[in-house]
Amino acid sequence: MLCFIETDAAMAAHTADLLLGVCIERSFDRVSVDGQLSTNDTAILMCSGDSGVLIDQGSEDELRFGEALDALLRTLAIMIVADGEGAERIARVIVRGGHAPHVETAARAITGSPLVKAALNGGDPNWGRIAQAVGGALPGTAPLALDIAIEGIHVCSAGAAVAHDEDALERAVRQAEVEFEVSLPGAGAEAEMFFSDLSHEYVRINAEYTT
Amino acid sequence: MLCFIETDAAMAAHTADLLLGVCIERSFDRVSVDGQLSTNDTAILMCSGDSGVLIDQGSEDELRFGEALDALLRTLAIMIVADGEGAERIARVIVRGGHAPHVETAARAITGSPLVKAALNGGDPNWGRIAQAVGGALPGTAPLALDIAIEGIHVCSAGAAVAHDEDALERAVRQAEVEFEVSLPGAGAEAEMFFSDLSHEYVRINAEYTT
Repeated sequence: MLCFIETDAAMAAHTADLLLGVCIERSFDRVSVDGQLSTNDTAILMCSGDSGVLIDQGSEDELRFGEALDALLRTLAIMIVADGEGAERIARVIVRGGHAPHVETAARAITGSPLVKAALNGGDPNWGRIAQAVGGALPGTAPLALDIAIEGIHVCSAGAAVAHDEDALERAVRQAEVEFEVSLPGAGAEAEMFFSDLSHEYVRINAEYTT
Repeated sequence: MLCFIETDAAMAAHTADLLLGVCIERSFDRVSVDGQLSTNDTAILMCSGDSGVLIDQGSEDELRFGEALDALLRTLAIMIVADGEGAERIARVIVRGGHAPHVETAARAITGSPLVKAALNGGDPNWGRIAQAVGGALPGTAPLALDIAIEGIHVCSAGAAVAHDEDALERAVRQAEVEFEVSLPGAGAEAEMFFSDLSHEYVRINAEYTT
């Protein structure tokens, strides 16, 4: 990834650094295609100042600029996922709970699970694979009282299956974008990730591409 | 995985516990199909004592029994990998270096990389993906002076490409079993893993299988 953002606003280097850093944490740091990083991954914010509009740190303008930058970077990050190698379907996962490292670990484990990603590809509402990814990534927490909802349909409560409209769920997971919500015990922490599915095309591209 | 081992030897429960624990660390803990764990994963060693042969802790018999158990469990573990969902080719990776957590992290990162696994499937001698997996898993270590050999053919030295017989390498990675050796700076620590490739069949099985 090589990301260059240009603006004609003027701002101090430390203001630009701060804004870019905060926005990257909410965008490029929240996406996964296959979990593999590149030394090329780069995002640069360039401010020419040509407009003569100075954005002071702590100002209302900085807030507005930050919101615009956030929206732009999140849009770009989601475009990267949607354009991931072989991507046919993408998903957003939000993990909530009382322990910040746990919600982060759980969210990354879900996005990194080949089983979850293949189920996403196949339009299979297999929430057991989500529970398995979370449990496997958080050793020593069993039995884990986790809740899972897929596209707002509650399928798992305190680790146990919940009766739900199966037809509605099957339709929901066949959309182009699917949302998973996972709740771990406690409250106050939240981690969000966007990720793509694991498709035949991903295997074809990466097995056939010879360097 | 449900593994039941039976012997007609007699031994104290703590001897059996110790032997089984050591052998599991060298077998079932060293394999990965897709990195996903199951709550079913179980290995049980049952000693009936019917033979009347008592195996004392610290004895020569314990050593011989331990070696036999080790060989059996490693064989079973490699069979699990070879029988992994859609597995067409398997590999062994050995990471050596001076820092035990690093060699372990690097070995698991290589086996968990969808890019490495797809290259293994395609018979692509793409050692850059091995270097990338190691580098991505060990932040703060760049530039990483790692050596990589594939089936004994040295392809990377201190992080840089090494001239090699490309035809020999291409033949080597198209075998049913491929060996990767990675060396990080230092000496004394070693981690070994066996893993399977990422194939179209893996995607088919896991995308189509609906629960």
